[in-house]
Amino acid sequence: MKVISENRCFGGVQTVCSHDSDTCGVEMTFAVYMPPQAKDGPVPVLWYLSGLTCTHENAMTKGGFQEHAADHGLALVFPDTSPRGNGVADDQAYDLGQGAGFYVNATRAPWRPNFQMYDYVLSELRGIITGNFPVVDRHGVTGHSMGGHGALTMALRNPDLFDSVSAFAPIANPTQSDWGRKQLSEYLGDDESAWSCYDSSILLEEHGWKGDILIDQGASDQFLDLLRPEALAHVMTKRRQPGLIRMQPGYDHSYYFVSTFAGDHVDWHAARLKRMASGLGLN
Amino acid sequence: MKVISENRCFGGVQTVCSHDSDTCGVEMTFAVYMPPQAKDGPVPVLWYLSGLTCTHENAMTKGGFQEHAADHGLALVFPDTSPRGNGVADDQAYDLGQGAGFYVNATRAPWRPNFQMYDYVLSELRGIITGNFPVVDRHGVTGHSMGGHGALTMALRNPDLFDSVSAFAPIANPTQSDWGRKQLSEYLGDDESAWSCYDSSILLEEHGWKGDILIDQGASDQFLDLLRPEALAHVMTKRRQPGLIRMQPGYDHSYYFVSTFAGDHVDWHAARLKRMASGLGLN
Repeated sequence: MKVISENRCFGGVQTVCSHDSDTCGVEMTFAVYMPPQAKDGPVPVLWYLSGLTCTHENAMTKGGFQEHAADHGLALVFPDTSPRGNGVADDQAYDLGQGAGFYVNATRAPWRPNFQMYDYVLSELRGIITGNFPVVDRHGVTGHSMGGHGALTMALRNPDLFDSVSAFAPIANPTQSDWGRKQLSEYLGDDESAWSCYDSSILLEEHGWKGDILIDQGASDQFLDLLRPEALAHVMTKRRQPGLIRMQPGYDHSYYFVSTFAGDHVDWHAARLKRMASGLGLN
Repeated sequence: MKVISENRCFGGVQTVCSHDSDTCGVEMTFAVYMPPQAKDGPVPVLWYLSGLTCTHENAMTKGGFQEHAADHGLALVFPDTSPRGNGVADDQAYDLGQGAGFYVNATRAPWRPNFQMYDYVLSELRGIITGNFPVVDRHGVTGHSMGGHGALTMALRNPDLFDSVSAFAPIANPTQSDWGRKQLSEYLGDDESAWSCYDSSILLEEHGWKGDILIDQGASDQFLDLLRPEALAHVMTKRRQPGLIRMQPGYDHSYYFVSTFAGDHVDWHAARLKRMASGLGLN
């Protein structure tokens, strides 16, 4: 692991690192924010998964999460959204290939050798974080758009690995959307039965979630038709799944929307992660 | 005035506009944040002047000022740092020409026709803001690095136009620094007597300031030698000028530093701008 930069930020430290990833077969970059409380002992972790075209950097610089993480004593992790580089497959479209990994394990050429973002985030990067930073084994996950899809699918499939989940304007039903069908058929092939484990509306219907779920969605989001929050809302209500979907009037799909509600999401995760930690005598 | 974008943000609206500037002779871009309180009546204004290489966008997306401005009901204005475009003079160096206007009125070729940032911000843009947005005539000014220099010099020379002033890691003594001597000689010529009206340490010594001043400076700032906060600190103490200069341990020159203390500066200006407004029965 190589440290690329370190900056003091809200009393803690914002670090950017790179490492040679076995899972993705290339060097990967990620960012970690450690709050001031980490000096006194290990802290819970909130993962933030970014959307299409983003790197580790967008939410790190524009999301405004650090201020709230410092208030609560949470670490933040910002992974990249795909493998990158000259030897890595790509596509001219903004929504396929580099910058658009969709948090899946690709099974088809040319994507398969590098596009293993599901395993990368869930196993390899998680191991690097827990092995190199002072964190306790309490993890929340959130994300925006494609990253909201990643957050929901990873949590719903791995309730043993995550203690809290939320999302900002997630791609909520990719098997039925142009933000999903194109990518899932490219990365996984045309057999749609292989897609459902990456669709949070289907996963929630099948498995539910052990806790409650927070979704924020801008009511003026220019991509609402592609996100399909109505599918997730339908399942949540039908299944009597605890949680809330907040339609926020006037907000669009931008980081102005994400940063506005960043504090609410950090508060939400902190309450759940620290309650659990406290029950275990860790805080 | 042309509206380029509008985004809902912390209950208010972040707008980016452009307009044909008489003062600079080209189209100029600026950003304005109007807090939710502006729906109910006019609000005071906090100006934020950016540093070298920046546009209107850096602090707007990375500074985290909107959250605090929304708490207090302050408008924010983010001007560009220079005129720009093909017909505008420039230099290959990052610290001269486009992106480096230094908030002066250039008197020398080739800069004179466009590089009139002092008058542009103080008169033309101020007129556009007060004429087109619901604001009261209460203005605070802050800025970062070159923008901190701009904030201090504009306020110190125009106590009738500004009611509060602060700065983040300002270029505090440009007549004695390589961040200053090069630019002042290019824009104003070699007669150094013309430079002193753009040096906040000299201005403070000559005129003082009617209120108190807040300066935040990272103690690990990689550009400390160029900023020369010691000159301003010397004058502040010698003149018994009310205010505080905070040396913040561990912080560098980046927006991680600016965003960390953005809330403190907005609080500071709000207390002073609203106290004055309240004395006049405006709030």
